[in-house]
Amino acid sequence: MSDPLAGILEGNGHRLRQRVYYEDTDFSGVVYHARYLQFLERGRTDYLRCLGIHQGQMALHGDPDGLAFVVRHMDIDFKAAARMDDVLDIVTITKAITGARLMLDQKVFCEDNELINAHVTIAIVNRSGRPRRLPREIALLFEF
Amino acid sequence: MSDPLAGILEGNGHRLRQRVYYEDTDFSGVVYHARYLQFLERGRTDYLRCLGIHQGQMALHGDPDGLAFVVRHMDIDFKAAARMDDVLDIVTITKAITGARLMLDQKVFCEDNELINAHVTIAIVNRSGRPRRLPREIALLFEF
Amino acid sequence: MSDPLAGILEGNGHRLRQRVYYEDTDFSGVVYHARYLQFLERGRTDYLRCLGIHQGQMALHGDPDGLAFVVRHMDIDFKAAARMDDVLDIVTITKAITGARLMLDQKVFCEDNELINAHVTIAIVNRSGRPRRLPREIALLFEF
Amino acid sequence: MSDPLAGILEGNGHRLRQRVYYEDTDFSGVVYHARYLQFLERGRTDYLRCLGIHQGQMALHGDPDGLAFVVRHMDIDFKAAARMDDVLDIVTITKAITGARLMLDQKVFCEDNELINAHVTIAIVNRSGRPRRLPREIALLFEF
Repeated sequence: MSDPLAGILEGNGHRLRQRVYYEDTDFSGVVYHARYLQFLERGRTDYLRCLGIHQGQMALHGDPDGLAFVVRHMDIDFKAAARMDDVLDIVTITKAITGARLMLDQKVFCEDNELINAHVTIAIVNRSGRPRRLPREIALLFEF
Repeated sequence: MSDPLAGILEGNGHRLRQRVYYEDTDFSGVVYHARYLQFLERGRTDYLRCLGIHQGQMALHGDPDGLAFVVRHMDIDFKAAARMDDVLDIVTITKAITGARLMLDQKVFCEDNELINAHVTIAIVNRSGRPRRLPREIALLFEF
Repeated sequence: MSDPLAGILEGNGHRLRQRVYYEDTDFSGVVYHARYLQFLERGRTDYLRCLGIHQGQMALHGDPDGLAFVVRHMDIDFKAAARMDDVLDIVTITKAITGARLMLDQKVFCEDNELINAHVTIAIVNRSGRPRRLPREIALLFEF
Repeated sequence: MSDPLAGILEGNGHRLRQRVYYEDTDFSGVVYHARYLQFLERGRTDYLRCLGIHQGQMALHGDPDGLAFVVRHMDIDFKAAARMDDVLDIVTITKAITGARLMLDQKVFCEDNELINAHVTIAIVNRSGRPRRLPREIALLFEF
């Protein structure tokens, strides 16, 4: 890894370590529930980065007006809560690629405790928001 | 309504109007997906407020060490995207109250377009995070 | 006012009312300091909106490649802290317009308590980030 | 360093490396201005962490009802903008410690470009928000 900030590829997926800061917590004393979606998105972004897919460059692939990944569906269990100063591991696993959709399983751990379990459906769209097939050269990077 | 900021009760639920600001958008040009969870949480908070339930005062009800509402599960369809300056309506409907859980359906609209469709499970817990029954005097406020 | 969401023009400025939600607080129990900059930005955006300046449309004025307002400098006193459920008034006053810069004074109040006192310098830039004069027809809207 | 996540002490201060993610940007295409305050706060938190000061444990020091660091004043130049995927270095330097106040200079760099230059005044307060002297054993950690 030339870029330890971006986490590491492992198995059929990726692992990213991130810290909980003040900004992530709310007055209940634990991490604000919507912040976990930001941790999950950092995990997905760095998974793509480690696969060599830079979202800024997606515009160059496969479609005259560019491609982007967008979240279409999330099913999330909030199982336990993280606190200020905790170190979180965000684990992302590719479950399936089907035409214009990418199915990912994502978990957030604090040490051995599973805090979040999420099933995420990502669509590939062009700049007008129309669904597009994931280009074959990108799909192959997921080794699936 | 003495407090128009807090939205209005309607049918078996609540409606809150909120604006999209710079902070809600990302470089893709539309609202960042995790921000919808914040709009949904504003809707739930003001629904409780309009029912006369102040989350800060929940500590006084039913349990020596206080009660809180926490999100346990969310199933979210991201159907379409809002943009800077859009005015959003966050609609919250009570589906069921069963012991220690509250099931809400929430939608976000921009004019007539349904952007978000979410099924949210809320647990009632004490300060140690242990599940507790929703006190009867609070459950009755949902008129269910 | 056809749009009560956007606050009201008053004197040489604008006033916007906003609620503190969960998302705005941190585990210390009060509003996270950086969130006040978001409240201030909402105030500035709605001040412009009430003046008839829509930032999305700024691209059409005065410069082939569009204009935007960007924050260049802020001097902020954090005088007191807001809490969950508080209702805040964000007051914005135009102090000066000088060529490519707009100087605003902004305060955040909770009832009669002044929480935030900020001096904000806004630059007018084109899409390449180069400074541009504020078009005269826009400067006149500030009645200064 | 046993904890590379927390950055490193250097000279009379600290350096932390952080990535720009989707959540940090806005529809103008660059990082939303208020997000830099979150990067600065991460830098201060990890500076304290590297000095052995855990803010959660501050409650144990020097005052029966606990101590906390709060931001009292910030003077910020927004000199240039970061973009999605950029890697930022947050540099924090102690300028002075005077009784109940800590003066820090903070800069954010993207490679060699200085994006942010901030002068930050931190107050030490007890849980009631009253100013307190920084305990001598903590002040000594800043080696000043």
